[in-house]
Amino acid sequence: MAAKIEPGVPTIVNVDLGNRSYPIYIGSGLLNKPELLQRHVHGKKVLIVTNTTVAPLYLDKVVDALTSGNPNVSVESVILPDGEQYKDMDTLMKVFDKAIESRLDRRCTFVALGGGVIGDMCGFAAASFLRGVNFIQIPTTVMAQVDSSVGGKTGINHPLGKNLIGAFYQPQCVLIDTDTLDTLPERELASGFAEVIKYGLIRDTEFFEWQEKNMQALMARDPNALAYAIKRSCENKAEVVSLDEREGGVRATLNLGHTFGHAIETSVGYGHWLHGEAVAVGTVMAVDMSYRVGWIDDSIVKRVSDILKQAKLPIVPPEMMTVDMFKSVMAVDKKVADGLLRLILLKGPLGNCVFTGDYDRKALDDTLRAFCKS
Amino acid sequence: MAAKIEPGVPTIVNVDLGNRSYPIYIGSGLLNKPELLQRHVHGKKVLIVTNTTVAPLYLDKVVDALTSGNPNVSVESVILPDGEQYKDMDTLMKVFDKAIESRLDRRCTFVALGGGVIGDMCGFAAASFLRGVNFIQIPTTVMAQVDSSVGGKTGINHPLGKNLIGAFYQPQCVLIDTDTLDTLPERELASGFAEVIKYGLIRDTEFFEWQEKNMQALMARDPNALAYAIKRSCENKAEVVSLDEREGGVRATLNLGHTFGHAIETSVGYGHWLHGEAVAVGTVMAVDMSYRVGWIDDSIVKRVSDILKQAKLPIVPPEMMTVDMFKSVMAVDKKVADGLLRLILLKGPLGNCVFTGDYDRKALDDTLRAFCKS
Repeated sequence: MAAKIEPGVPTIVNVDLGNRSYPIYIGSGLLNKPELLQRHVHGKKVLIVTNTTVAPLYLDKVVDALTSGNPNVSVESVILPDGEQYKDMDTLMKVFDKAIESRLDRRCTFVALGGGVIGDMCGFAAASFLRGVNFIQIPTTVMAQVDSSVGGKTGINHPLGKNLIGAFYQPQCVLIDTDTLDTLPERELASGFAEVIKYGLIRDTEFFEWQEKNMQALMARDPNALAYAIKRSCENKAEVVSLDEREGGVRATLNLGHTFGHAIETSVGYGHWLHGEAVAVGTVMAVDMSYRVGWIDDSIVKRVSDILKQAKLPIVPPEMMTVDMFKSVMAVDKKVADGLLRLILLKGPLGNCVFTGDYDRKALDDTLRAFCKS
Repeated sequence: MAAKIEPGVPTIVNVDLGNRSYPIYIGSGLLNKPELLQRHVHGKKVLIVTNTTVAPLYLDKVVDALTSGNPNVSVESVILPDGEQYKDMDTLMKVFDKAIESRLDRRCTFVALGGGVIGDMCGFAAASFLRGVNFIQIPTTVMAQVDSSVGGKTGINHPLGKNLIGAFYQPQCVLIDTDTLDTLPERELASGFAEVIKYGLIRDTEFFEWQEKNMQALMARDPNALAYAIKRSCENKAEVVSLDEREGGVRATLNLGHTFGHAIETSVGYGHWLHGEAVAVGTVMAVDMSYRVGWIDDSIVKRVSDILKQAKLPIVPPEMMTVDMFKSVMAVDKKVADGLLRLILLKGPLGNCVFTGDYDRKALDDTLRAFCKS
């Protein structure tokens, strides 16, 4: 299990997508290895997209990695405000403005430096600028390292729903320097673990059991535990994405808890709850519903709630949430098909799930009522 | 040549792109054939994107074609303001707003009903809504029927340049009802012929010679001449797109005159000049430059200017254009690569062209100076 990590030596997980395949590099000190990044830079111009929190910490380091021994490359950067509330069209336009003012052409490379919001926005900007330029993901949060930077889902929010506008667009590589987690706030750290826990629940029992034993180490930022959790999460993600890049089926299972969670994020206003916090509550609700329809036994319900509590993640929605709020946002979820909401529910022994619209509507109502005051 | 057209019977041109292949239906009275459209509609919900000019003329007809004998389909529409000046992010957002308010899901179909602006915007909206839904093109201008509706280039303008934000995204089918040209203003008709002339110049000598003999018939809207020009244009476009969908090489030749033309459209302000008018002047400038570098003889220069005049298209830029205006917009053209502007120039006998950055810079300067007062 969790082998000792060696600074500057990446573990590589491949995302296998034919001619759009790419490597995920995971390790400590990788931003000190210019050759890793530079081999994936196309053209002579790079635009780094980052935010006001990450720029003071890592922008210079990434510029150095891109330009060290490589004087032909010119690097521009655009620094966006930080937070889910800025994952919108107006902020996206700032990326295009900068790209055009900097005279970037089709041979340029965009680099996303930050968490999930930056990765999603930079990716969508790269997909749309001049109808598509290359891009690289350098995720700096657990959330982005274990989930959002891998697999090519890019996009922005609409006032009525999360991620409703975007593209499937794969990066040239994902570079995960685990040292960047040293500066991550506690709340952001925990938020990312919601997605780590998800992989265990939907498809990797052994990983879930490892997490049950190692959540304290993860919360204490034990480097070896973190590196292992990231690697194993990326392996799970890469496998699912390789099977179903455009979410025709199995990829949807990665959205366990997300339909409930998106309703919370949208209703309380983007930026108030972190994505992983909302997903944690959504996971509890999906598990509750799975139990109500009789698909799992109550020991799983307890284990889910226990591990989320260990990760200091919330397990009940904010008090303001009503049944109607949930229903109205869930009606525009991307997993609705011909009017029918499909959900990811656990079914059978731990590690198994289904993606289905064939469930008892009453169980959904009962779950919503159980978690809302009105 | 120009065979008699028979109402309700489509000529079919296929765009061959593997699993993204699709048919172009061309003919008179095709909007009275519901089965043509309906076989390409996915899901139960359709969103028609059109504009204030086209909606009063054809919206009811298209709704009828979609719903006739097909009561399970519900059709919504969004009517945008008409004109190139509205091909922007704010207007695009209205399409997303309507789609989300109407609770459209991934199985819906978008329908573009209008000219090039509507087709480009609806296509980009379809590419980005929920990361991609199906769409159908129903072009109602010559410009859209012979060029923009075919081949999957979608997008919007940026204040600093045309079509800088977008996607390559193919429709399910293109349905060209030539009867819709009956209501097209004269200026729009002529604008479309600029692209028809382009196909002759870059790759189809025989077609150019046919146009030289038939431009009066085209301007008089002779149905058989129009049908032939549209079909032959679509065949040329389909062939080029099949060879090079994402414009790695040969597809760029379809942009003859467009780099100069885009500079005019952007500088005078979107919506003042029609796209084809700007392309006509751009074509004259590209041909002038081709002659200056010694790649064509002067008979071609004369024939190009003669046929454009026959089509009542402009052959000189607006007086306000300066050399600096051309240069500053051309610097952000999508065909710039690593700082070098590549152009489409004619070379050899009529019907041949090259896409190259390897030309005498002085010839470009000379052409710009010859066409500008300062």
